[in-house]
Amino acid sequence: MKNIFGNSLTITLFGESHGPSVGAVLDGLAPGIPVSEQYIADALSRRRPRDDTATARREPDDFVIESGVFNGYTTGTPLCIRINNTDTHSGDYSDIRGKARPGHCDYPAFCKYHGYEDYRGGGHFSGRITAAIVAAGAIVTPALEAKGIVISTHLSKCAGIDDIPFDFGNVEEMIDLNKKPFPALSDEAGERMKENILKAKAALDSVGGILETAIIGMPSGCGEPWFDSVESMLSHALFSIPAVKGVEFGAGFALADMTGSAANDGYGIDADGNINTPTNNNGGICGGITNGMPIVFRCAVKPTPSIAKKQRTVDFMSGENVELEIKGRHDPCIAPRAASVVNAIAALTVADILTGRSGTDCLTGTDVKI
Amino acid sequence: MKNIFGNSLTITLFGESHGPSVGAVLDGLAPGIPVSEQYIADALSRRRPRDDTATARREPDDFVIESGVFNGYTTGTPLCIRINNTDTHSGDYSDIRGKARPGHCDYPAFCKYHGYEDYRGGGHFSGRITAAIVAAGAIVTPALEAKGIVISTHLSKCAGIDDIPFDFGNVEEMIDLNKKPFPALSDEAGERMKENILKAKAALDSVGGILETAIIGMPSGCGEPWFDSVESMLSHALFSIPAVKGVEFGAGFALADMTGSAANDGYGIDADGNINTPTNNNGGICGGITNGMPIVFRCAVKPTPSIAKKQRTVDFMSGENVELEIKGRHDPCIAPRAASVVNAIAALTVADILTGRSGTDCLTGTDVKI
Amino acid sequence: MKNIFGNSLTITLFGESHGPSVGAVLDGLAPGIPVSEQYIADALSRRRPRDDTATARREPDDFVIESGVFNGYTTGTPLCIRINNTDTHSGDYSDIRGKARPGHCDYPAFCKYHGYEDYRGGGHFSGRITAAIVAAGAIVTPALEAKGIVISTHLSKCAGIDDIPFDFGNVEEMIDLNKKPFPALSDEAGERMKENILKAKAALDSVGGILETAIIGMPSGCGEPWFDSVESMLSHALFSIPAVKGVEFGAGFALADMTGSAANDGYGIDADGNINTPTNNNGGICGGITNGMPIVFRCAVKPTPSIAKKQRTVDFMSGENVELEIKGRHDPCIAPRAASVVNAIAALTVADILTGRSGTDCLTGTDVKI
Amino acid sequence: MKNIFGNSLTITLFGESHGPSVGAVLDGLAPGIPVSEQYIADALSRRRPRDDTATARREPDDFVIESGVFNGYTTGTPLCIRINNTDTHSGDYSDIRGKARPGHCDYPAFCKYHGYEDYRGGGHFSGRITAAIVAAGAIVTPALEAKGIVISTHLSKCAGIDDIPFDFGNVEEMIDLNKKPFPALSDEAGERMKENILKAKAALDSVGGILETAIIGMPSGCGEPWFDSVESMLSHALFSIPAVKGVEFGAGFALADMTGSAANDGYGIDADGNINTPTNNNGGICGGITNGMPIVFRCAVKPTPSIAKKQRTVDFMSGENVELEIKGRHDPCIAPRAASVVNAIAALTVADILTGRSGTDCLTGTDVKI
Repeated sequence: MKNIFGNSLTITLFGESHGPSVGAVLDGLAPGIPVSEQYIADALSRRRPRDDTATARREPDDFVIESGVFNGYTTGTPLCIRINNTDTHSGDYSDIRGKARPGHCDYPAFCKYHGYEDYRGGGHFSGRITAAIVAAGAIVTPALEAKGIVISTHLSKCAGIDDIPFDFGNVEEMIDLNKKPFPALSDEAGERMKENILKAKAALDSVGGILETAIIGMPSGCGEPWFDSVESMLSHALFSIPAVKGVEFGAGFALADMTGSAANDGYGIDADGNINTPTNNNGGICGGITNGMPIVFRCAVKPTPSIAKKQRTVDFMSGENVELEIKGRHDPCIAPRAASVVNAIAALTVADILTGRSGTDCLTGTDVKI
Repeated sequence: MKNIFGNSLTITLFGESHGPSVGAVLDGLAPGIPVSEQYIADALSRRRPRDDTATARREPDDFVIESGVFNGYTTGTPLCIRINNTDTHSGDYSDIRGKARPGHCDYPAFCKYHGYEDYRGGGHFSGRITAAIVAAGAIVTPALEAKGIVISTHLSKCAGIDDIPFDFGNVEEMIDLNKKPFPALSDEAGERMKENILKAKAALDSVGGILETAIIGMPSGCGEPWFDSVESMLSHALFSIPAVKGVEFGAGFALADMTGSAANDGYGIDADGNINTPTNNNGGICGGITNGMPIVFRCAVKPTPSIAKKQRTVDFMSGENVELEIKGRHDPCIAPRAASVVNAIAALTVADILTGRSGTDCLTGTDVKI
Repeated sequence: MKNIFGNSLTITLFGESHGPSVGAVLDGLAPGIPVSEQYIADALSRRRPRDDTATARREPDDFVIESGVFNGYTTGTPLCIRINNTDTHSGDYSDIRGKARPGHCDYPAFCKYHGYEDYRGGGHFSGRITAAIVAAGAIVTPALEAKGIVISTHLSKCAGIDDIPFDFGNVEEMIDLNKKPFPALSDEAGERMKENILKAKAALDSVGGILETAIIGMPSGCGEPWFDSVESMLSHALFSIPAVKGVEFGAGFALADMTGSAANDGYGIDADGNINTPTNNNGGICGGITNGMPIVFRCAVKPTPSIAKKQRTVDFMSGENVELEIKGRHDPCIAPRAASVVNAIAALTVADILTGRSGTDCLTGTDVKI
Repeated sequence: MKNIFGNSLTITLFGESHGPSVGAVLDGLAPGIPVSEQYIADALSRRRPRDDTATARREPDDFVIESGVFNGYTTGTPLCIRINNTDTHSGDYSDIRGKARPGHCDYPAFCKYHGYEDYRGGGHFSGRITAAIVAAGAIVTPALEAKGIVISTHLSKCAGIDDIPFDFGNVEEMIDLNKKPFPALSDEAGERMKENILKAKAALDSVGGILETAIIGMPSGCGEPWFDSVESMLSHALFSIPAVKGVEFGAGFALADMTGSAANDGYGIDADGNINTPTNNNGGICGGITNGMPIVFRCAVKPTPSIAKKQRTVDFMSGENVELEIKGRHDPCIAPRAASVVNAIAALTVADILTGRSGTDCLTGTDVKI
């Protein structure tokens, strides 16, 4: 399936960082989802580098909806959205052809594509392609929110600084978080993260972080026991985001050190007669199926591999050991910008799961359009 | 796609723990892979409970190859393998119908299947179904090994005890590990793990662990950039194993605390002129594509949710709060037995990736059969 | 996807004619469909050879439901049904190994599987595998009928004799047709077809026919414009039935000789205010989407390639020209028995289309099961 | 899968006739296929209306390759090609909103999309989308030809006139056929077809035809027994072409009237020692698998449903019976232009089958690119 994801609602990605455009085709969308160009533009702006903790590149993200939207609503036919590439400096990259940037895909891509790959700026492997994911996510996110499903991501840890935890009783805070210029729940923690990111930049280095995501309002009974568990579907999508090297649900790796009696989420009946669990160590998923509690997962984001420090590596064209100084313009920490990508890809995955369970019209907003 | 996994080589699972049998259909297999019933029996025996750290259930795992094998070789047509269920005590379960076992799927499955699910012993969600995965893995594993691809899993941590690390230069040790009755590289660490597992059992409780897996010999250039990265495909498969709640590759979550200069795996040329990386923080995968280094990942396995201790939960049939004592026979730690499941599912995933890249005959062992 | 068909409801086939069993796994079934073993047995009996117009082989079709049914209802988890092979005469086939039976797959299969294929009696290519399709169809057919969707197939032409046309106003007749021992609407035409089939048999030869199928009650608005049109999905499934060499919808090939004004199905409003078309040259499908009229298609079934007459062919093992007399026991015309296979595969395809459109529960019969 | 086709090489379509553009994304392409913009332009020109037997619309087909091509070769990453819509007259369509054009998808699409569909000029159902198929086909066709696989289509019958048959010994003629302005092997027959098409146009009516396609050079042993037979895959793709209502392989429906001894293709050994069949009633496919003979199939193309003659139909918005005169500009016979679409979609299907069998690099033209 390669560059296609999803069973009932599929996303197909295309584009290279230095080609004409990057884009996505969404197929299986419900007809009748309201589409706001402003909402898409806002989502793209949150993925863009915005301050000196990010790359100096400026990406205006001019997008075009080529198909699938008519009179402000999805038609139900494939929606293609493209974002033109404009601020590309090809010259920054051509001199490093063959020099395998450590932590990057140059060498594996050469092995895979036999040298035909577009090696400029990461080509099809570039983080630039995530702009198309964010744009696609901006189509389905409002439809999910209209059904009471809210997705929110914060930097639970970055550059050695911890954020405060989610308050799952405060959905407004979770929605607001997605609009903050830096995705920390605690502004103070966010400031300290940014300071440390800038210190790493000054040291010609980079840092990583952990993104924590919550999905509120997902109905119980979604997902499949074998192979398309909710965890399987989400991790599949999340691990295709560049730099994500770990995914855990609920208490995740900490569960390995817990006893069953501590880890188990006992069910109870709340004041309204609803079944839920006071603890949520399973992150809202048991046996691969949602249990109605918030879905909670964390992604480990590795430090940006592009650093200005001199590195030792090889030139796989000449077969020689070389020293490499990566020039270009890069983020000293990609994790803050990745929050919007995680939200988008989670939205697409959740929409796919819902569409498979409840049919192609399940996100249709209104009655018959006339 | 539900209970089907894989693009080019697919596995379809079926079965309930208390139905006639569990099984798998493999489609897309190369013709000409030698099939040994003894090898399959040995693989199944390693998944079975073998000592008092595991359940008292005895599962003889009598299997039948229904199709796809002729004269000792795969034919290239779908291979169905079934394992009959024999030692089933349905009476152990009927009295807990409706009582949502904490950490189990009873309640989510009820929401999904509206009460039609086979609730006896986990039904289709049972760990019993992993026997079919192990049997299927035993078909492809020898074919992979014949191509120099070795997969091995140890308990890097269990019940609070750490194992020693893999020695990637010692492939023999890795192959032998898969045959050990307890999957620890250090026998001494293994003994201490078992002691702690028995202590948890005596306390009517359970413990978890971390399984670390290495895949040696995978060629560089395999995988896809979006969405079928090697990490995506492996995590998709791994997260469908019951009790797995986290998956990380290479240094994984530890990368979030590293700098780029420490995390990056610089390439070098070894004495034989081969390109490799002295460090392997990326776990053999960059940009979703293999780079020729060992693929290394870890799975967090939660403590067995079935514990003998009294727990508070709800009866979702009657809508009442209840106390629950789970009787039956359960593993106080499922992680040791899960090692063979992880190996099997990794083998199937790797075989799928190779088949997609190199065609349906890529695992064919020999020349034309006459 | 090879031996798997369907997007939302999938069928996976396995088995060889001379192996232990043939079978199917259905995944994506709604929970709560009532399952009757008698109904399945009856469906299988209609596929079986029943008189001297068919092979002398006797296939008792003892089937086992291995999974996915509990207390008489589908659970919603994969349903595996197997039919044991019993009346197999391997000796009939071993002496023709290498001798490419004209019209059969021996030679193409040898090219594909390099000699590892099970060559006894067609192996995985055998019409025997259609028993698994019929059994799977018998799971979904009653659920479709409960929703008012009726599928019926007659021999519109066989051995040179034409049947009378469907009377679409007579649904009872269509249901009864499926139960007739010979699938002709006109008993008199059926007798003449049988006479001609027996004449062909006496001449050591075989004949073909055309099967016409109607699907009544399918809602309008189902299907996809590109590529999963209802015609695409049905033809995909139908062309995997052995001996089917042509599929046409509505007026089909006759449309090539019509003018637009004659071919177009003008819409009208009937006495009940419903929109329909007095003509149905498009066979209930326009633009790939159902329009609410009966779906009508015809399959061309070639004459059975196994004939007793001496034939000239090659031995692809020795590379020599040879003469071949096929012994075994074969149907002088396969078309009558294929009617039940066409019905079954159409039912599975329609159920898949409905499930994708309306979700996994769309065929669930009743309310929550307790 | 909806608007996506193919297992190993997939095509995703998008676009509406009156939106900004139509296009396709090809995923799973081999790296290193030479891409010629002139070749693509030529292919598109053959699909375009070229004389008075076709619509008066003029479609310049300005295309943009958005991704997947670098330095004149495919990179192996997704190739997006878009064709801008320019000569669109929306005014021609708005006044017929709600009036169900007979033979068109207006009414079924309304049922499916609940009124959100782009109803201008057929929207996503428009034949305009086939321009994207032709462009995509022009990427893989030269790669297939470089491997000796030639695909060619002629109008075996149109407007009551028969063409002469293919001469399979004359591959040059088959290649030249694809470049002729009118796809008849016999120029004289072509002239008579055109005359009859113009007569139908003068009568405010339309006519249909039969397209016959041959695929030469396909290796034996390709395809799958169940469900992805070569016939299944081709028919799936072909039936998504608008106006195709029948597909038959080899002798097709005529087989229903033949005896087995006449229908069977006996194998022989030719002067070069190759195995082939003097007859080809099975159209190069037995048991769903190629046997090395030319693959031959025919598509029935219905007369263009858009005719200028007054027709009776309903307005599904108002629920009234209405009379309809379709203005716009339409082809009095779509079959000649459809030849290039059939060739393109056959090329994509064949490339998919080959890629699945022999891996992602199987169409790579040259050695490693540096």
